[in-house]
This record gives sequence, structure tokens and C-alpha cells, in this order.
Amino acid sequence: MEPIAPGPISLGMVGGGQGAFIGGVHRISARLDGAFRLVAGALSSDPTRAQASGAELGLDPARIYDDFRQMAVREARRRDGIRAVAIVTPNHMHAAPAIEFLKRGIHVICDKPLTATMAEAKKLAKVAAESDALFILTHNYTGYPMVRQARAMVARGDLGPIRLVQVEYAQDWLTQAVESKQAAWRTDPARSGLGGALGDIGTHAYNLAGFVAGMEPEAIAADLSSFVPGRALDDNAHVMLRYASGAKGLLWASQVAPGHENGLRLRIYGAAGGLEWAQEDPNRLWVTRYGEPKQLFTRGGAGTGPEAARVSRVPAGHPEGYLEAFASIYTEVAAAIRAHAAGQPAPEGVLFPTLQDGLNGMRFVEACVQSSARNAAWVRL
Amino acid sequence: MEPIAPGPISLGMVGGGQGAFIGGVHRISARLDGAFRLVAGALSSDPTRAQASGAELGLDPARIYDDFRQMAVREARRRDGIRAVAIVTPNHMHAAPAIEFLKRGIHVICDKPLTATMAEAKKLAKVAAESDALFILTHNYTGYPMVRQARAMVARGDLGPIRLVQVEYAQDWLTQAVESKQAAWRTDPARSGLGGALGDIGTHAYNLAGFVAGMEPEAIAADLSSFVPGRALDDNAHVMLRYASGAKGLLWASQVAPGHENGLRLRIYGAAGGLEWAQEDPNRLWVTRYGEPKQLFTRGGAGTGPEAARVSRVPAGHPEGYLEAFASIYTEVAAAIRAHAAGQPAPEGVLFPTLQDGLNGMRFVEACVQSSARNAAWVRL
Amino acid sequence: MEPIAPGPISLGMVGGGQGAFIGGVHRISARLDGAFRLVAGALSSDPTRAQASGAELGLDPARIYDDFRQMAVREARRRDGIRAVAIVTPNHMHAAPAIEFLKRGIHVICDKPLTATMAEAKKLAKVAAESDALFILTHNYTGYPMVRQARAMVARGDLGPIRLVQVEYAQDWLTQAVESKQAAWRTDPARSGLGGALGDIGTHAYNLAGFVAGMEPEAIAADLSSFVPGRALDDNAHVMLRYASGAKGLLWASQVAPGHENGLRLRIYGAAGGLEWAQEDPNRLWVTRYGEPKQLFTRGGAGTGPEAARVSRVPAGHPEGYLEAFASIYTEVAAAIRAHAAGQPAPEGVLFPTLQDGLNGMRFVEACVQSSARNAAWVRL
Amino acid sequence: MEPIAPGPISLGMVGGGQGAFIGGVHRISARLDGAFRLVAGALSSDPTRAQASGAELGLDPARIYDDFRQMAVREARRRDGIRAVAIVTPNHMHAAPAIEFLKRGIHVICDKPLTATMAEAKKLAKVAAESDALFILTHNYTGYPMVRQARAMVARGDLGPIRLVQVEYAQDWLTQAVESKQAAWRTDPARSGLGGALGDIGTHAYNLAGFVAGMEPEAIAADLSSFVPGRALDDNAHVMLRYASGAKGLLWASQVAPGHENGLRLRIYGAAGGLEWAQEDPNRLWVTRYGEPKQLFTRGGAGTGPEAARVSRVPAGHPEGYLEAFASIYTEVAAAIRAHAAGQPAPEGVLFPTLQDGLNGMRFVEACVQSSARNAAWVRL
Repeated sequence: MEPIAPGPISLGMVGGGQGAFIGGVHRISARLDGAFRLVAGALSSDPTRAQASGAELGLDPARIYDDFRQMAVREARRRDGIRAVAIVTPNHMHAAPAIEFLKRGIHVICDKPLTATMAEAKKLAKVAAESDALFILTHNYTGYPMVRQARAMVARGDLGPIRLVQVEYAQDWLTQAVESKQAAWRTDPARSGLGGALGDIGTHAYNLAGFVAGMEPEAIAADLSSFVPGRALDDNAHVMLRYASGAKGLLWASQVAPGHENGLRLRIYGAAGGLEWAQEDPNRLWVTRYGEPKQLFTRGGAGTGPEAARVSRVPAGHPEGYLEAFASIYTEVAAAIRAHAAGQPAPEGVLFPTLQDGLNGMRFVEACVQSSARNAAWVRL
Repeated sequence: MEPIAPGPISLGMVGGGQGAFIGGVHRISARLDGAFRLVAGALSSDPTRAQASGAELGLDPARIYDDFRQMAVREARRRDGIRAVAIVTPNHMHAAPAIEFLKRGIHVICDKPLTATMAEAKKLAKVAAESDALFILTHNYTGYPMVRQARAMVARGDLGPIRLVQVEYAQDWLTQAVESKQAAWRTDPARSGLGGALGDIGTHAYNLAGFVAGMEPEAIAADLSSFVPGRALDDNAHVMLRYASGAKGLLWASQVAPGHENGLRLRIYGAAGGLEWAQEDPNRLWVTRYGEPKQLFTRGGAGTGPEAARVSRVPAGHPEGYLEAFASIYTEVAAAIRAHAAGQPAPEGVLFPTLQDGLNGMRFVEACVQSSARNAAWVRL
Repeated sequence: MEPIAPGPISLGMVGGGQGAFIGGVHRISARLDGAFRLVAGALSSDPTRAQASGAELGLDPARIYDDFRQMAVREARRRDGIRAVAIVTPNHMHAAPAIEFLKRGIHVICDKPLTATMAEAKKLAKVAAESDALFILTHNYTGYPMVRQARAMVARGDLGPIRLVQVEYAQDWLTQAVESKQAAWRTDPARSGLGGALGDIGTHAYNLAGFVAGMEPEAIAADLSSFVPGRALDDNAHVMLRYASGAKGLLWASQVAPGHENGLRLRIYGAAGGLEWAQEDPNRLWVTRYGEPKQLFTRGGAGTGPEAARVSRVPAGHPEGYLEAFASIYTEVAAAIRAHAAGQPAPEGVLFPTLQDGLNGMRFVEACVQSSARNAAWVRL
Repeated sequence: MEPIAPGPISLGMVGGGQGAFIGGVHRISARLDGAFRLVAGALSSDPTRAQASGAELGLDPARIYDDFRQMAVREARRRDGIRAVAIVTPNHMHAAPAIEFLKRGIHVICDKPLTATMAEAKKLAKVAAESDALFILTHNYTGYPMVRQARAMVARGDLGPIRLVQVEYAQDWLTQAVESKQAAWRTDPARSGLGGALGDIGTHAYNLAGFVAGMEPEAIAADLSSFVPGRALDDNAHVMLRYASGAKGLLWASQVAPGHENGLRLRIYGAAGGLEWAQEDPNRLWVTRYGEPKQLFTRGGAGTGPEAARVSRVPAGHPEGYLEAFASIYTEVAAAIRAHAAGQPAPEGVLFPTLQDGLNGMRFVEACVQSSARNAAWVRL
């Protein structure tokens, strides 16, 4: 394997053409720390839009592709071909391109959830297992410095044995029937998969809880609802969690909760302390050691450790946000890709969500749908 | 029936002797607005403590009783006997005194939950139904002005049809095994009843949610835990709620959540808006009408209506707290007692929790215990 | 001197008749802890209103007076006469009644500011110095538990030598010309004195800062404004403070700051730490020891000491508010009155604002007016 | 004038080598939106560090310069030379390089404050006036979307005529004597200029207040302090402001306020309403229209207008932070540079701080130092 020159790593993108949201986020994130440079794209399944979108981004016309297969084939052949590809299509369009690139040794950075169906997920997992390339799932909230701090505190036992995991992800943008491009595919089972709010944001909540708590539930009981008339998928999910250790949890995901913009919030309680973090105020982490006053840890502030510092750019009090956290995933991945090219493991401390996280999320959604169909009976994960 | 002279109404108290907590709260609440004057007491089942406690409160020695039955009999005979009695004993000691006083036409103001067992509750309900006297259960959180405001906003449809009820009541004082008098009876099934955290604070959460939402669930599914080794009753409860209307809810009650002092918090979401209220910041109510900026309503502030104003004393920005809210229950009850004495219904707008609220709470605890024993199966209320 | 029987101390009131605000606050505060019982009143200078107000409060008709002099004379003669009187009239009506009662050995609890003019203040101070009776000024914000906590932390050096005192008191109710009874006298120099916002709330801010910081400025420079056309007194004051120690401060008082209800807020910084307290969220105190995470101290919570506990009633998380803090002044005073009757000094830890605080406040207002008239030149206090 | 090709504009940098802070911020900001690409640098006055720093950033060795003059000369000659240069040296090193580049028609993006001395500032202003190139001062806080929103609301009269401007910028990192590279030059008059905290952060506060309020004070009175022994420049500034309209203000800048990380906070009050914004919670803007409940406007949320939207990237609830706001300055500048190259004015809505803002800030610092030296006498701006 050829080592990678200093400077940005060459990146391609599938999806993310004009009118899309998450593609732009990936592009900013890829370049924010100088980790990647976008050089190729199959930005839309509509060739006209694919061309226009690529031109707008200043891509070399020769590397604007109408089709992701074409892109995989040609880029794999180029001497200066892309090392990694970002897949930012709707859920049902993740597996096919991912497989094409993985097969050709091109690292895949894929938006979540993994796929629309468990069958696709398993097929993809099989290909990934056979590929030398890395597969990264952008559960971007794990890139926040204070989420890393929380994880480190739990891991080193600051809270004692964990008893309770309370996670919620509440939004309001689907409170009424909406007809935007963003809403359309997210509420369509054919493109989104089994889960509505569950798949779109519930999987983020689930992943975040596991990332910080350092454990996955062994069983869940879920009560799903579709409050907006005519909506085919859930727009609200109530889920009870049970962990093998005896810990318990609640997960609430909703896209019909007026007053919430992007209300991802995690609280974890152990025998010796508790912590609380909210995505909309991400530079702060509240920690209570039982019997002591509550403490406010801040990104870059006193008492905040190296796990946070290494995904942080500016001093305390200069807020970093969503894009920086997302960029940290890309920057972690770049470090791993460089190490990989040099035949080495990812550097100490580098963390990013993997295909296994994606499978766990898929299984979580599937289990919730099963449970809800059985009147919220417990389903093992 | 004899009308009641202007000025404070004569009040007795059962329980609340030295070392108790809630008795002192009731006494402050009774006098805060000048609604009642404590004139008699059976303050402890220990006669020495009963006498000492009464003397400390400056009660007439002739009206310090060793025994609530004695007190009921004698006070009922006095021309200036008490009109009402506050019962502030542990849960298993609510029914017996309540029955004694109700039988003699003395109004009963009883701490929650109603009783320790459903059998007692039903017996008490029967006596209450046959008595002309009023029975009030001090679900004191319904006395907060902004809770009244929230209830009024839901009732007049500001949020549209209600879809979601999220209520939580988190404390941390039982995070470890504790040996205070307060903790001892609350963790003892013989004195507390079926519920631990559920009975002590879960019933408050349940009552508050119903008070504001204007509806009771039709079924619940509960997962109860006792995290502290050796604890006989639940110290954490996860409960999913279903309403007949199709609305759903989550209720979390915990006494093992480090960082929470008295974290009762209610959020309600409808098709047209959402609201949020937290007991630790009680003078504020956050309301979002879908599609508009979030608004902060304050006690006494712009936009806050008469339902809040009538249980409020001082202008906006001068915080009222727990004792004022508790006092509002007493003051509402005083108005009802005066009206009752005059043969009239309670004045327009007067609200206080009743025996039915107590029965609902008992049934809620019972159903949760049943559900949890059946692996969180749904149980109808 | 005759000792005082157990139970509430007999209290009279001057002012506070129907339509007044602060009189009701004093009455609730006096009885909240059972410290006082209101038994006599000269509640209005209008005899009809005086009678009606007294009757409404259930006073003995023989003790409803049309005139404070009459009340002072008669109550001083009664065997069961009042021990203390609360004076809750507009500022220009403080001195005359205070003098009458002090001369007769009746303790005076006077609303702030001390008087409308410095001349009156000096006259009153002379009488008070000659009287055996106590004089208390209700700078009620010093009764908040977390203000006591802050004071204790500063006093024991937790913040190191104090460098900065930032205090503000912002309201919005005089943003436009208003015609309420409350507003009328506060904006009338003849009844309010030299200071508008300065006298009404600036003195509170000044007193609070001194109470917590444990020091008074030696000089001030003030820029006063009257933003509402036709207003004779200041409705906004900017004041720079200098302390003998080299510390500096800013004081902002405003009644024309839309969005502020009763925004009294104090921040103090030293060489080793800082603290912040806000009256609208009074159960919390934020403390940062330099180089450590910020800590949240709560009333009744971990780390909060006895200075707060002794003016606190209910456990952490059960918010106490404005009335409780005000009541603590009364309850402190009752302890001092009892000790005084027994010929003893006030018990250890008892704290209440005195005439000296009143004189300091008067001088502060006077100095600010002088400074502002001299284009914000420094004026020594 | 040659139009600029699509894609990033070529950028050089003076200063910002290894160990510097703000240089990295400028680099991220320049590339975040894809507006600029760094292609040349004179990154340190130490040639070894200049080379190492350039190599680390992946610059073409031919465009790593030891000296800014050399860079100006050579880049101006290159056909593909830089179009703009970012100057991120300490204050006393702003003027000289700025002049070199301006003379050669290269646009200058300069960190604040403008220069260390007023003499330099005037000289620079003269050169800038004669140059066709743009001069931009990175008062980056004006790039926050909710600052733009606040400015728009004030401008369209939502608050009525402005009466009060309260601005503060509190930090704690200089609470004790520190010896970092960052601290060293900021506390050295030779490198920093007349102002310590005033120059470093007070000018930001001053600029922000003027940007939002839409007016500059006509006079100030300042009381400066140096609390840390041996410190040559102010570490705390109290400033009273007077505006020609009759409005008043307070400005507090401090680097010795423990508990504040980067506490820039602006509050503006008018006859019809008030608003509040804090840099550490930048996605929120609190607005009160007098007589209505307080409203929370959020970046991307309901009611927030196009002025905010055009400097915003992701939807509401996905926090943008310091780097995004800084990047918005760069992106605005890129738009202006493109327009300039096409011989057109900057597009409608494009806003960035200019040399005049720099001069205003310099004059503000100078006036504060004069005022403080004259015992806080008023000094006209």
C-alpha cells in the first residue's frame, strides 16, 4: 500500500447534490481541519443535477460522474484517485455504492443509518469484512469534545457502576405533514427503512448512549406512534432499555415535539455520580459526584481532559458546534486512513463509529419495530 | 351548618412532631396566607414527644392530644373545635385518623399518597363518600401558579390535541443506603405501601401530569428497579403511558439519580404547540406555538392569566416557591370550607386535589407494581 | 424589661392599607415562620381606608387606628401592647412614625430606603441612638440563604482578596409613563426623595453588594438619566465604585430595561475565585475557584453551610423565594427582640440591616445625585 | 482588473506560525466555507520557524517566506499571486505588513486591534485610502448570525429608540500572572499598545455594541485597573458611555474575572423592547417586546430573518460557533473581493468590519486611557 502524501486526502462523494442538506455538512466537515479535499463526485442520480452540482463545487469536469459505479471504477484506476468516499444518499441508497467502493479498496464514510433494510446491512457487512478498506458511519455526535469527556469519565469510573441511561432526541419539524425533500424520503419506508424518527434520530440517540455508557442494552420494549395522519413510519418512539448489568434506561425519539429543534440530550447516573449533556449546548458537561456540588466542565476548561482536547480547536469559551464535531469524525478518520496506508493501526485515542455501530443501530430499529408490533413486549438485541 | 367567622380557620394536626419534615411544611402553608390557625394536635404516637411538640408550637395544653382518636372526639365536642385537620403521618397511618375525623364532620387535609394499601384506600373512600366533610389530598405541586397557567393553556387548546406527556421526578437522596427517619419509612413496605419512589414521588408526577394534561392514561407498562442492595421497594421506575385519545407518555421517577435534588419536570406536546415546566424553576413556563419563537411566560408577567394570578402573591420577578404553592392548596381549601359552611359550592376557580386523585394515584402505583411483576406488560388503570 | 412569652410577638403596622403592595409582603413575612402576629394598625392616612383595611385583616376594632401617633401612644400604654411596628409607608412617611415608636421603646421595622431626605434620616438616627429599641431596615434581599452563603464564602477568603464588585438591579415596569399608585409616589421627589430608581432599587443593590463583599466603596461616580419624558427622578443609574482596598465596581440600576422583571444580580471576583447570584433564581449560587470547574451551590445542597441553613426551611430542590427571604429578616429580628427583652445580645449568627445601612444607602443616593450633577465627578461617601 | 476564477481565492498569511493561536483560527475560517485557499506565508519572524510552519501546512516551499516584504514583492509579481493576505501578528506588527500589501493592491484581512499606536493607525489609514485594495479588520463577533439578527431588529425599530447599551467582555485567564506566549505580548505595552484588556477584548465589545446598536458613543468616562502586581497594562476596565441621542451605556472589559471564559455579552434596551445575546451561547437571542412575554429567537428558527440566514450553514438546533462566525467574515470578504475584481460594489447584505472600525477602536482605547489618567473625566470620541 502506498503511503499518503502530506496535506488533504482526496475524497469523493456520492449524493449531496443541489437541494440536499447533509452533503454540504459532509463537505464542510471534510475540509474544516484540512483533512480531506473533495475531488470527485456522483452527486445526484439525475445526471443534469449531478453535473450542475459538481460544477458549482468547482470539481474537475472529468471527475463529475453521473453514476456511482462509473465513479468507483474510474477513480480506482486513477493514479491520483480518491482514497475515500462519502456516501450521503438517502438510507436505501447506502449499501450499493458502499459495496462498489469497498470492493475497490476505497474507504467508505457513510451517513447513518447504515441501510434501509437489515438484509442490505448484512450484505454490506459481508463485503466490508472481506475488504481491506475502512468503513465509517457518521454518528457525528460522538465527535463532540464533551461527549468524549463524558465517555472518559464513565470509563474511568467517576460515576461508579452505571445504573441509569436516559437519552432523548426530540425535534419538531415533522409536527405537521411537510412536503420538503428532506421530509419526503425520511417518511417513506421504501427509502428510509423500518424506522421513521427511530431511524433518523433514534439511532443517533442509541449510538450516543452506548458510546458514553460503554455498554449496549440486552433488551428493549418499544411503543411507537405515528401521530401525523397518513404518515407511514413512526414519528415518536418510547423505548425502555435493559442492560445485562442490571442497568436500565429510557430512550425517547420524537419529531413531533414542538419547541425542540435538535434536542439530543443524554443523562447517565451511577452509584457514585451523574452527568448530563445536551447537544444544543455542546461545550458544557454537568457532572455531579454524589455528595458534592454539581460541577460544570467546559470544552477547554479546567478539569477537562485530553480525550476532549484532542478533538477541540479553540480555547474554552469560544464555542465549537455541530460542524466541528462532524469534522472531528472526518479528522479522526483521516488519521486512521494514513495509519492504514502505512500498515499501522489507528493512532492511540482515535475513535470513530464503525459498521458494527451501524449494525447495532439497524438491529435496534428492527427490535423496536418488532416490540411495538407485539404490544411493547421485550425483544432481545 | 354554622358559618365560619372571618380570620383564620381552626386547624388540628395528626403527626408532624419533632423530627418530622412534612408537618412543618403543612404548618407554614396553613398560616402563610392567614387561612388557618393551628390550635390542636396529636403530633406523635409517642406521648412524650406529642406533648413536647405541642408545647414547642405554643398549643394550648388542653388541646395537645396523645392520640388522634381522643383528639377527634374532643375537638368535635368543643364549640370552638377544629374545622379541619391536617394528617401528616407516614402513609400507613393516613386512613385511620382520616376516618375518625370524617365521621365527625371535620374536613381532612391529608398528605399523599392516600394510604399504604388499596384496601385502606377503598375503606376510606367509602367513609368519605358518606361524610359531609371535605377530603383534600395535598398534591401540592398543583398549587404552583405556572402549573395552573399550563393547565389553562392546555384546556383552552393552545397546544392543540395533546399527543405526548413527558413527566419525570428525579431525586438523588436515596442513591446510597441512608438511615434517616425520612428514609426509613419511605423504604419500608409496611409503612409506605407498594411503592417506593413510585409512591413517594411517582404519584406526584402522575398527578401533576393529569392535572395539566386534563386526562388520565388508560394503561401503563412499568419497569421498576431497586438499585440499592437490600432495598425492599423500588427506587427507580420507568413507565410508559397510553391514553384513550391515542396520546402517549413516559413517566420516570427516581430517587437514585445523582445531581437531582427535587427534579419534577413536565413537558406536554400537542399538534399545535408544546410547553415545559420544572419545579426547581417554578416561576417560569416555556411555551412554543408551533412555527413561532419559544416564549417565556412568568408568574405575574405579560401574557400570564388569571388562573395563575389567583394563586400568586407578589409581582413578577419576586420568586414564589414550594411553600407558597403548598400554601395555595390550603388557601383554596379554606375558601372551599367557608363556602361549604355557607351551604355553597366552592367558588369559581378554586381547585384542590381530592380523594379521587388519591385513588387514581393508588391505582397507578398498584398497576405499575403489577406490570413490573409481569415483565412490564400493559395494565389497564 | 419584661421577657416575651413564647409564640408570636405582637406587631403593629403603619401603612399597608388596601391598594398597597409592600404592606402585604410584610404581613406574610411576619407570620410565615410564626414569629409575629399583627394585632394593631394605622394602615392608611385616609381614616375610612384605615378602618376598612383593618377590618379586612381581622384586627380588633379597638386597635385599628386612624393615625400613627394615636397608635404609638395607646399601644405603648397597653399591657399587651405591640412590641414592634412595621412601617410600610412611602419614603417620606418613614421618619415621623419611626420616631414616635422609638421614643416609646417600640422596636421599628422600617421599609427601605430609610427616609426621603438626609435631614430626616439624621433626625431619625439621633432618636434611634437615644432609644433602647431596635431599628431594622428591611433590605430583604440579605435574607436569602444563598446570599448568606456568598457572604460567608467571601468572609472566609474563598475568593481571595476582592477585586471587583458588579451589581445590577434592572426592572422594566417604568419603561413607559405609568399611573399606578405604586409608580406615582416612586417617581415623585416629594414622596420618594432624591432618588428614583436609585432610591427604590439602587439602594437594594448597594446594600446587597456591601453585605456580601463585606466592604463599602469610598467613592462613586454616577451618571443618572430620566428617559421617560416628564419624569422628575432618575429611572436609570450608571455608577462606578472605588473601594479603599483598590477594588473597583459597577452598579447599574434601571427601571426602564425591557425584559427584566426584578433583575437583581451580584457578581464578585477576587484573586482566587468568583461568584454569581441572581435574585430571580435565588436558590443557586455559582462559585468558581480559579483553575477549577465552576460549581453550583444550592440552598440545602452539598457544600452549602450553616449560614444559609439557618435561614432556610425546606430541603434542597424545594425552592424558597422572595417571601421566605423577607420572612427571614422578620424571624432574625424576632430572635433579636427576644434576646433584647432578656437583656442579652442578639444570638450568634443573627443578621439584619440596621439604621446604619439606611444611612449608608441615603448617603449613596445623595452622592450619586451630587456626582451626576457634576458630570459624574467622583464623590466620596 | 482581472476577474477571479470560481473556487477558493488565493490567500497568504503573515504571522500565525507554530505556537500561535489566532493564526490557526484564521486558517480554518478561511477554508471552512471554501472561500479561500492558503498558498503563501511569512508565518514567523524567526526564519526557522517560518519554514517549519509553512511545511507543516503543506505550502509550496517557494511560497514560504522569511519576511513579509519579500512575500509582498514576490507574490505581487506572480501571475497566480495571492489576492489577499491575512495579518495575524501581535498588534505592533500589523501596520508595516498591511502597508506593504495594500501598496501592491493585495487585499488585507487584519486581526484586531488595528495597530498598537494611533500614529501607526493614521499612517495605515492614509495608505489604505490611497490603495484600491480592501482592508478588513476581523472583529469576528459581528459574524454571528444572531448578532446580525439583533442588528436587523434594532435597525428596523423593533426596540424603539435605543436608550441603553450594556456590553461586557469578561475573561479570567489573566487572573494571575501568566507566562504563556499569548499572555506575554498582550501585557506588554510595546507590543500591545495602550490597552491591555481594553485593546484585546474591550475593542471587540465596543465594536459589537456599535455594530448592533447602529451608533457610536460621543463621549466616555473610564476607570482602568491593573490588578495583577507588575502588570503594565489594564486588566480591567469600567467605562461609562454617552451617545449623542441621549442614550447611555456601560462597558466592562476584564481578564481577571474568575468563572468567565470568553464572556462577551450584549444587552440593548429601547423604549419599546430589549434584547440580550451572549457569545458563549451564540445561537440564541432573547428579545422582549415591552408588555409581551420574552421570546427566544434561534439561528435558523422561527422568526429569525434573512440577515442571520445568509451567514448560517446548518438548520436550527445544530449549533454553529466561534469558527463559523469567524468564517462568515472571510466568506463575506470573499464575496466583496470577487465583486471588487469585477468592478462592482459588494453584494447587498455583505457586511464586514473595516479600517474605520479599527480607527474607532483605537480612538476608544486612547480615550479610555486619557479619561482614566484624568480620574475618569469624560473624553469625547
